[in-house]
Amino acid sequence: MHEYTGQTRLLVAIDCIIFGFDGEKIKVLLVKRGLEPEKGKWSLMGGFLSHDMSLDNAADSILKKLTGLEGVYLQQLESFGDPGRDPVERTLSVAYFALIDIHKYETQLSDTYHPEWFLQDNLPPLIFDHAQMVKKAKKQLKYKAALHPILFELLPERFTIPQLQSLYEGVYDISFDNRNFSRKVFSTGLLIKLEEKDKTNSKKGAWYYKLDKEKYAENFDAFLHFIPNPDKLIMEG
Amino acid sequence: MHEYTGQTRLLVAIDCIIFGFDGEKIKVLLVKRGLEPEKGKWSLMGGFLSHDMSLDNAADSILKKLTGLEGVYLQQLESFGDPGRDPVERTLSVAYFALIDIHKYETQLSDTYHPEWFLQDNLPPLIFDHAQMVKKAKKQLKYKAALHPILFELLPERFTIPQLQSLYEGVYDISFDNRNFSRKVFSTGLLIKLEEKDKTNSKKGAWYYKLDKEKYAENFDAFLHFIPNPDKLIMEG
Repeated sequence: MHEYTGQTRLLVAIDCIIFGFDGEKIKVLLVKRGLEPEKGKWSLMGGFLSHDMSLDNAADSILKKLTGLEGVYLQQLESFGDPGRDPVERTLSVAYFALIDIHKYETQLSDTYHPEWFLQDNLPPLIFDHAQMVKKAKKQLKYKAALHPILFELLPERFTIPQLQSLYEGVYDISFDNRNFSRKVFSTGLLIKLEEKDKTNSKKGAWYYKLDKEKYAENFDAFLHFIPNPDKLIMEG
Repeated sequence: MHEYTGQTRLLVAIDCIIFGFDGEKIKVLLVKRGLEPEKGKWSLMGGFLSHDMSLDNAADSILKKLTGLEGVYLQQLESFGDPGRDPVERTLSVAYFALIDIHKYETQLSDTYHPEWFLQDNLPPLIFDHAQMVKKAKKQLKYKAALHPILFELLPERFTIPQLQSLYEGVYDISFDNRNFSRKVFSTGLLIKLEEKDKTNSKKGAWYYKLDKEKYAENFDAFLHFIPNPDKLIMEG
């Protein structure tokens, strides 16, 4: 039997950045911290890693405990380990992130710990280095969305072009020219026009579309080329 | 003063996956493990995190100690935390990776711990979950290289098209059609033809090229479009 003597052992936390889209805006789910220090302040969904759990399982179980959300696809982002990030005791935090359709999970969201959605551009002050975690997660989202049409996973079954445009504008934090955006979206050949209009925002209305799922599966990279250079966007961000 | 009582504290390790390109092949730098268990077996460059160091600084200092390499751009990959990954005691490992020009760092490489370069497709058995770490790092490299022309950072000042092709073939683990590859590379407008040929591999020789650095800086995404769909490649990998 061998032992690692004289080495430092650290507390390990998991923190989850949950982005949601409500059809108009991208939001971030926050919860009030339940323990000292900074008890009662806004925080990402977090908790300590217990001795017998894998990182992925711990992330799932923390999210479920604090929000009631289950079956959300969480992906590891990176670890934050500055010695002073938690003033009480050095704690390494492994951050996870997810992107969900807010309406789809509305009924699941439990109120026990009072989780709340905040506009991503208007977050309250967060504890420790959580604002830095959100910033990194937003950057990662831009990368992922440039290579995968993952943003479609967030849209309802039928959606309008202005909704799709809001989603991309939210992720990339820029404004697209409306006509240019439509032209590029239609050129992917992935949208099927429906016979109905959404008239909630204008008299003229906006046609509903649905995704051509077969083409979507075959042609997973058709969206690649309409994303502006993510590097430039990321540098500015 | 508050305390986190009753929580688990874990050993934290850093492991570094160093990819190198020697002008022909992509290789991985390994070192023989210096402590029990599995002493003397091949390992990534690793060590424990000490109580006062940030993760990035720990990665730099471990790499320097074991290989002599300094000033290498290391990027955090992700953390590996399965409870049983180290048989002696649960250890969370934060993995880092880098991609370097082997010749550029040749003189720096110290022999104290006998680091050695292995062909990425022909690695010896590695300790613990290090093979899984290498696999993840290869996947990450495909993503990065699809969005950034980072692979150019690995080429010498002047290079031939076959060298450039080898590098891309190594990262994506596929063969490009030679003529197709040349055509796409030239279409980026980033290469400047030199007046000299490399005759080491054929009588006819291959023209040397250099990178148009101004255009490269301006037009960072020109290479985006000639990478095959990274998702498909990654699924297969």
